[in-house]
Amino acid sequence: MAFSPLVDELVESLRCLPGVGQKTAQRMAFHLLERGRTGGTRLADALGQAMTGVRRCTSCQNFADTEICGICDNPVRRTGSLCVVESPSDLLAIEQAGDYRGGYFVLMGHLSPIDGVGPEEIGIERLLQRVEDENISELILATNPTVEGEATAHYIADRLDGRDILITRLAHGIPVGGELGYVDGFTLTHAFRGRKPLSD
Amino acid sequence: MAFSPLVDELVESLRCLPGVGQKTAQRMAFHLLERGRTGGTRLADALGQAMTGVRRCTSCQNFADTEICGICDNPVRRTGSLCVVESPSDLLAIEQAGDYRGGYFVLMGHLSPIDGVGPEEIGIERLLQRVEDENISELILATNPTVEGEATAHYIADRLDGRDILITRLAHGIPVGGELGYVDGFTLTHAFRGRKPLSD
Ligand SMILES: [Zn+2]
Ligand SMILES: [Zn+2]
Repeated sequence: MAFSPLVDELVESLRCLPGVGQKTAQRMAFHLLERGRTGGTRLADALGQAMTGVRRCTSCQNFADTEICGICDNPVRRTGSLCVVESPSDLLAIEQAGDYRGGYFVLMGHLSPIDGVGPEEIGIERLLQRVEDENISELILATNPTVEGEATAHYIADRLDGRDILITRLAHGIPVGGELGYVDGFTLTHAFRGRKPLSD
Repeated sequence: MAFSPLVDELVESLRCLPGVGQKTAQRMAFHLLERGRTGGTRLADALGQAMTGVRRCTSCQNFADTEICGICDNPVRRTGSLCVVESPSDLLAIEQAGDYRGGYFVLMGHLSPIDGVGPEEIGIERLLQRVEDENISELILATNPTVEGEATAHYIADRLDGRDILITRLAHGIPVGGELGYVDGFTLTHAFRGRKPLSD
């Protein structure tokens, strides 16, 4: 390479970011060196601290700085509802929607026998223990509407079979503000089957 | 935010990277936390060291770890040719092409009076001093074929008017392997005007 070892190493390390190839890594490195040294230094510190300091909440499995995360630690959120999601981004999307006020359980994945991901890897026993210990009355299975997400939801529901607990799944349908012409057939079928009286 | 301060700060700092918005920053942060802690730690170190350690070569103005960069310090590259480029990426592209073996001068920009970028800001005096001191016989003005790049090239050429030095500009034309139908009109005009006998 034509550059200094420090620049070369910076370009190389930037490639650990998802979706960042050689060209983008170069552009990022030059941008930081030319116009973003303050931001670059801040990022270096934030990365260093996050990589060593961030762990998993022992209650919901989400990323946290402490043993118990802010949501699990908040008594107001112990409503008897527990929402099961696949990833922290899913949790974030629900939090940003702002309506749901109960607790969470973050699987950090979904069942995928072919990749060696079984119930243990995504913490199903821990989830079932919480349902028991916290007297959960509603378990919302908000895994993704994919084959794996559906299979994971069904597996969890089966494990709770016979218990006195309401198990729900998020409604499928036309996105609010969406145009019918752009909605795929599966969603449209779901929307038809789930249709409700206008007065509802 | 629903996350820990460490994760929030990581997401926020990732936004200093060019082209990275909130959603991408989130995706990057989660990826590093879930599957890339080794890479993330390496990036933290590389960033920290580059942000404090990388300076500008006092001879060519390119990024360097030392006062004089590897190219300027290499006696083999003192061929009497100096290639003027706008940015480190341009230098890198030429180095990767592998044919040119002379020296460089990196402007780190181009003349842009409207943005307050005059000859001093891009080091023109330093360049002229080098041309003098190093007995440069050919100055290749490889600034971009844009209005500002052309203006910068002409300004440098004017400042060397009357000197016994060959001043050249890179040839415009059809990219090798390019299809005529995809080449823009300006390039095609240049290619026509620069046409050469087949025996050449
Ligand atoms: Zn938690
Ligand atoms: Zn140099």
